[in-house]
Amino acid sequence: MGKNVLLAQSGGPTAVINSSIAGAFDAAAESADIDEIYSATAGIQGVLSENFINLSKLPSEKIKMLRYTPSAGLKSCRHILPSDDEDIEYKKIFDILEAHNIGYLFYNGGNDSMDTANKLNKYAIKHGFDIKVNGIPKTIDNDLFGTDHCPGFGSAAKYLNVTLQEAAYDTYSYLDSKTVIIMETMGRNAGWLAGAASLAEYKGRQIADFIYLPESAFDLDKFLSSISNALDRQTMVFAVVSEGIKNKDGLPLFTSNKNPQDKFGHHQLGGLSSFLAGEVKKHIIKRVKTVNPDIAQRCAAHMMSGVDYEEAYKAGYMSVKFALDGVSGVMSAFERVSNDPYEIKIVPQPLELAANTEKLIPQEWISSSGDNVTESLKDYVRPLIMGQVDIPFKNGLPDYFAF
Amino acid sequence: MGKNVLLAQSGGPTAVINSSIAGAFDAAAESADIDEIYSATAGIQGVLSENFINLSKLPSEKIKMLRYTPSAGLKSCRHILPSDDEDIEYKKIFDILEAHNIGYLFYNGGNDSMDTANKLNKYAIKHGFDIKVNGIPKTIDNDLFGTDHCPGFGSAAKYLNVTLQEAAYDTYSYLDSKTVIIMETMGRNAGWLAGAASLAEYKGRQIADFIYLPESAFDLDKFLSSISNALDRQTMVFAVVSEGIKNKDGLPLFTSNKNPQDKFGHHQLGGLSSFLAGEVKKHIIKRVKTVNPDIAQRCAAHMMSGVDYEEAYKAGYMSVKFALDGVSGVMSAFERVSNDPYEIKIVPQPLELAANTEKLIPQEWISSSGDNVTESLKDYVRPLIMGQVDIPFKNGLPDYFAF
Repeated sequence: MGKNVLLAQSGGPTAVINSSIAGAFDAAAESADIDEIYSATAGIQGVLSENFINLSKLPSEKIKMLRYTPSAGLKSCRHILPSDDEDIEYKKIFDILEAHNIGYLFYNGGNDSMDTANKLNKYAIKHGFDIKVNGIPKTIDNDLFGTDHCPGFGSAAKYLNVTLQEAAYDTYSYLDSKTVIIMETMGRNAGWLAGAASLAEYKGRQIADFIYLPESAFDLDKFLSSISNALDRQTMVFAVVSEGIKNKDGLPLFTSNKNPQDKFGHHQLGGLSSFLAGEVKKHIIKRVKTVNPDIAQRCAAHMMSGVDYEEAYKAGYMSVKFALDGVSGVMSAFERVSNDPYEIKIVPQPLELAANTEKLIPQEWISSSGDNVTESLKDYVRPLIMGQVDIPFKNGLPDYFAF
Repeated sequence: MGKNVLLAQSGGPTAVINSSIAGAFDAAAESADIDEIYSATAGIQGVLSENFINLSKLPSEKIKMLRYTPSAGLKSCRHILPSDDEDIEYKKIFDILEAHNIGYLFYNGGNDSMDTANKLNKYAIKHGFDIKVNGIPKTIDNDLFGTDHCPGFGSAAKYLNVTLQEAAYDTYSYLDSKTVIIMETMGRNAGWLAGAASLAEYKGRQIADFIYLPESAFDLDKFLSSISNALDRQTMVFAVVSEGIKNKDGLPLFTSNKNPQDKFGHHQLGGLSSFLAGEVKKHIIKRVKTVNPDIAQRCAAHMMSGVDYEEAYKAGYMSVKFALDGVSGVMSAFERVSNDPYEIKIVPQPLELAANTEKLIPQEWISSSGDNVTESLKDYVRPLIMGQVDIPFKNGLPDYFAF
């Protein structure tokens, strides 16, 4: 009799996170060594509460639908395992895993989730449990170490570029109304998403005149004078700002994207883009628009990157393959073999590498002025937004699946 | 020798406004009575400044690209013609039209634009100019009289529903975190766009628990108690609000969507949704998300409604056909012949009907509680969001066209 598989997700969802689950499911279903394929509902919390679903009993049609459904189909949590590896929580988890004859656990998430998988793997080894634990990375933030890029990033990057491009066409509908457009992207510490928005073009020219990243100190006065100078030269000025931009002391401009009290002491109900728009209105020009894709950038499965969708699937698939080959304590990482033509291979990387670390944009990919990105960053991102996914629609809307 | 055609656009752009121009172009190109097809750049302003482009000289490939490109491809303006029909501006316009041998003028826009077309048509008749002037309607607000619905509305409605649906999947990633989600839609006086967002479903159930329309008096205390009561029953509560909601005295909650001073006297940098989110945070629960599609709802050609795209084309096509049949002073209006199966016919309606009027949601399509819509409204909107448009991509992004 074979062992059973358990799949779980945690952390912030993405457009392709379920594609990874579909990949892991398919690899497990192909294996004669595996009996049942379970999911735990809401990550490690679902393990602790024994909230399992037997995916093997699901009509195969549902797994196909789950694959293109955005956001954590297995439900997510933000539970962090105790740092004390003798904490009673671990024993409880492994008792439950044993009771369900789980031989393989695959944990799909960002750096906190890789930390969870890492802790579980170490505990299994230390206490002699015959359970392989591997990670399947995902994060729109693209900030995991040990991998060229992360599943979820390409789709978010594509959506942001499409949104910026369409906003530019909208703005250029008017010939001579000087306008400032500020698009805010996610990314608390790493500016990959803001930087990625450098790809959108209008008439062959990069739309984003300025890109403000958490990796470069943000100076409000310099921001205002840059906008003002640009308005002397051109009619429309586009700025992309990462929600995580920081001042020269490394303090975020906002303690939280939606914090009612900004660092300047103003009462602030909107987010960063609203604040910056208010400053531009006060000091430069009244005609300012904000574009705030907010959660849409991480869940817009209707505009997934085909490359991202396929790679996310393969990351899940390979995570299971590594485990079946006896490898545990790794995540599926991408190694870029070639950029043009684009080619990657998927390699096992120790979970230790990704757990709780953050990969920032290298300084040489940021323009010397600190307010834009270089061609190298664009070359890096470009292959990741390629291809579209033709998802099924029903009654005019995407036909997604929910348990 | 035949006459020439002049095409122009004005008002706020939509995702399908250029599809109407492509339809008008094709109908004109098919006619032996027509020589050249010009466009005026930036509406009536482009006429006044003789800023014309000869579209007949453009490679036909470009018209095909223009068709699926969002936002006013011919550029837009917000110029209103003088109410004094002997104003010198009219003489100037008709001198220019005569100089270019324009026999047909097609004006593509919302109610202000239909007013412009109407004034020009009356002037032509009064002064004996052999120029036919027809309107091609468009407005995401869907508030034109004399037509069942307006080109542009279906695509905006589809985009809003897709965005709400994906936001719901994102929100439901977490099992037990009570959350309030507020999505703001456009619509200053008519609530069609907010009402349309009633179609999005999660697990077969309407996502929007509450829909606040300009047609129903908005009461902040009632809003807060509705949200609070709903949170007692369920984990996630979704509210859709039209930017134009008004209090019982008919005063808008915000004088402008982005007005820094709200009606409550608070300093306000964000929009309406930020303000309402702030009130919910203050009085009910901290976990509130806003979804603000903003200009994306009117320019997201990547998520056009197939029905809207085709109907916009036909509206342009028929506007020219009517003129070639000798009919002037009309706009192409939709008459719904049947709802299931959906079928419309395109009929000429006097411009007078649409000019400067606003069609609101009928009271019987608003729930008696005033905070949602009825099945009748959903039945009305549903056919308009059907079908997708497979637009070409280049380097992973939509391959749009700009002059």
